[in-house]
Amino acid sequence: MNYNEAFKTAVARVRAEGRYRVFADLLRTRGSFPRARYRVSTGEMRDVTVWCSNDYLAMGQSPCVVGAMKQALDDVGAGAGGTRNISGTTHYHVELERSLAELHEKESALLFTSGYIANQATLATLGKILPGLIIYSDALNHASMIEGVRQANCEKHVWRHNDVEHLEELLKAAPLDAPKVIALESVYSMDGDIGPLREVCDLADKYNAMTYLDEVHAVGLYGLRGAGVAEREGLLDRFDIIEGTLGKAFGVMGGYIAADAVICDAIRSWAPGFIFTTSLAPAIAAGARASVEFLKSANHLREAHQERAAALKARLTAEGFPLIESVTHIVPIHVGDPVLCKRLTDALLDEHGIYVQPINYPTVPKGTERMRLTPTPLHTDEMFDELVSALKAVYAKHARIRVAG
Amino acid sequence: MNYNEAFKTAVARVRAEGRYRVFADLLRTRGSFPRARYRVSTGEMRDVTVWCSNDYLAMGQSPCVVGAMKQALDDVGAGAGGTRNISGTTHYHVELERSLAELHEKESALLFTSGYIANQATLATLGKILPGLIIYSDALNHASMIEGVRQANCEKHVWRHNDVEHLEELLKAAPLDAPKVIALESVYSMDGDIGPLREVCDLADKYNAMTYLDEVHAVGLYGLRGAGVAEREGLLDRFDIIEGTLGKAFGVMGGYIAADAVICDAIRSWAPGFIFTTSLAPAIAAGARASVEFLKSANHLREAHQERAAALKARLTAEGFPLIESVTHIVPIHVGDPVLCKRLTDALLDEHGIYVQPINYPTVPKGTERMRLTPTPLHTDEMFDELVSALKAVYAKHARIRVAG
Ligand SMILES: Cc1ncc(COP(=O)(O)O)c(C=O)c1O
Ligand SMILES: Cc1ncc(COP(=O)(O)O)c(C=O)c1O
Repeated sequence: MNYNEAFKTAVARVRAEGRYRVFADLLRTRGSFPRARYRVSTGEMRDVTVWCSNDYLAMGQSPCVVGAMKQALDDVGAGAGGTRNISGTTHYHVELERSLAELHEKESALLFTSGYIANQATLATLGKILPGLIIYSDALNHASMIEGVRQANCEKHVWRHNDVEHLEELLKAAPLDAPKVIALESVYSMDGDIGPLREVCDLADKYNAMTYLDEVHAVGLYGLRGAGVAEREGLLDRFDIIEGTLGKAFGVMGGYIAADAVICDAIRSWAPGFIFTTSLAPAIAAGARASVEFLKSANHLREAHQERAAALKARLTAEGFPLIESVTHIVPIHVGDPVLCKRLTDALLDEHGIYVQPINYPTVPKGTERMRLTPTPLHTDEMFDELVSALKAVYAKHARIRVAG
Repeated sequence: MNYNEAFKTAVARVRAEGRYRVFADLLRTRGSFPRARYRVSTGEMRDVTVWCSNDYLAMGQSPCVVGAMKQALDDVGAGAGGTRNISGTTHYHVELERSLAELHEKESALLFTSGYIANQATLATLGKILPGLIIYSDALNHASMIEGVRQANCEKHVWRHNDVEHLEELLKAAPLDAPKVIALESVYSMDGDIGPLREVCDLADKYNAMTYLDEVHAVGLYGLRGAGVAEREGLLDRFDIIEGTLGKAFGVMGGYIAADAVICDAIRSWAPGFIFTTSLAPAIAAGARASVEFLKSANHLREAHQERAAALKARLTAEGFPLIESVTHIVPIHVGDPVLCKRLTDALLDEHGIYVQPINYPTVPKGTERMRLTPTPLHTDEMFDELVSALKAVYAKHARIRVAG
């Protein structure tokens, strides 16, 4: 057995598919986001505009968030120093969990080190707690949910993306008294479409299933207080478990679930991914809480965000770029080829100071490679102009697809 | 199906076993660690001394760490704003990976959001990259390794804890050319014993296996530059993958592996737990790097740490407390019953201001419940006196076991 060869082969496969990833070495410039500094391989620094951040509202540079973090650092220091159970619970964690429970109108919330581990640990643990569980998972659910479902080690059915008829067919086929969980997302982050939340809740009632909703790309952004799409649709109480992140619109890092106290308590007591890991740094919890509380009354930011997304979509459509239809803040331009996608985005970065990461497999299905744009309230009309003229230039140079206009 | 009942039952089971966990709501006081403030359920704050933190060297309150974090916050803000691939790589991440590679004398290192996910994602991914893999896992490996091994979805064998003869038996039984990984820890954190590192490397050579070493409770603490037990034993180059945390001796949070460039590149390209999650906050990376670099030349701290641990063990042994034999900085007092363990530690906290979390199942096997003490260089002789007299008082009041002296 030649191990070195095996690892080389694994990397070569990725390269052969044109999806080898080169991470852009960035430094955002606090106060002037979306502007940032990009380090080219020679070490030289260049100014760029970031068009693909999930810090959707630029809360990462907000004085209230950064200030809360610095204060926590001064007060208690850097790390938590332990798992939640062994000296790693601080009052910052307790208060953040309270804020999140209140946000989602649930009895409790439970913090994890990331949204990824929140999904994975919670779904896997439901399989342990509910013997005979059947999980119904939307076909486009995020990798972290897929991993959680797999580790739940139970019967599972994948329903066609957003297809509630297919979901009902599958539900109907199972015994009514079997425990069931339906898992879906509110905003699908790569296409920008939204799950059929109300219909799923209706089916859950009809077939006595629990509902599990990933609001990772919606928390902070939708609903009157930023609780997500379920809040906007008046469905908060119809989802048994709502999962979110502190790393996107809230601008920090970490993940959580919000649910009935007994559900959180059971997950807290049984999930290895919650139990056996150092808890979030207190300063992270402090910053996240400041962000959650700030965004509870920041509808002006949510409105500005939606306006920018709509304006960018209108602009790009008028210019003839092939947008993937999105009903949210996410603005994907279809490319459909990993090599072309990388060539376009490399040219945008190198020749125009515009940073858009190419999105390829495994993040999206092969053949649907895209440039995914995420305008924030701070992306100005002037930046739109820069973007459009750069896109035209790189398409003219590299793409066989002709863009109208 | 009554879901509420099912969750209640799951919690009731934990309660019935006497291992329901109540998290102590703490605020460390930066600058006077191990002193901290403890919030009782009424909201009142009490001063306590922390005896169970894994911030082993109190780096969490170090000005160099906190200063680096505040500077990063000022410079780039709170969160990374994306996955490593999609706008979430900053120069802080790049530099930290370089520091860690250098620490372990490897070509590369790869950051994860925690040591837990580093273990889980890496081991699971080895199963994908090496078809036909057989994993040999020490019986007392950490939950995160167990999860990773399970998800590797391959043949696995558990060797009796630290028993290299058993390991060899198992290795011998497999075809010589089958890919194999031997996974173990250096310091086992609950007992304080150390794995048979050299013997395992010799067996790995003999049977052409890869070696995977978890140094989570050793990094920062052992070896001339704090690279862990493998450094101390001169074995750095004989471990293919070394895994560590930034959340214990380094005092911050996050996890990593260090290995050949091609190994890191393959894991980077294939591990969902690395790919699909917001990267560590830049300030966390900055603080961790400051800590790693500081500890590369802080042998005085490592020596003070060992001296304190040895002194505490000697003191407790002289006083007749039943220590679990430990060759490291971990000082476990055997209790052997979850209810008694909790009663003793509750009394220490409530009546004596001494915070030691009871350690029970699933963190340790049932019947081996313990109080796990982790003295730092900042635990003084006077604190030892406080601890010993408090222990004597609570044992006298609650324990059937008579303590000599
Ligand atoms: C839908 C969805 N769920 C969960 C996650 C994971 O959240 P986090 O970045 O906090 O790990 C992500 C992205 O990272 C996501 O897109
Ligand atoms: C041996 C071991 N490995 C890994 C971990 C996980 O590391 P982290 O706390 O960074 O998730 C822990 C404890 O938390 C541990 O004890």
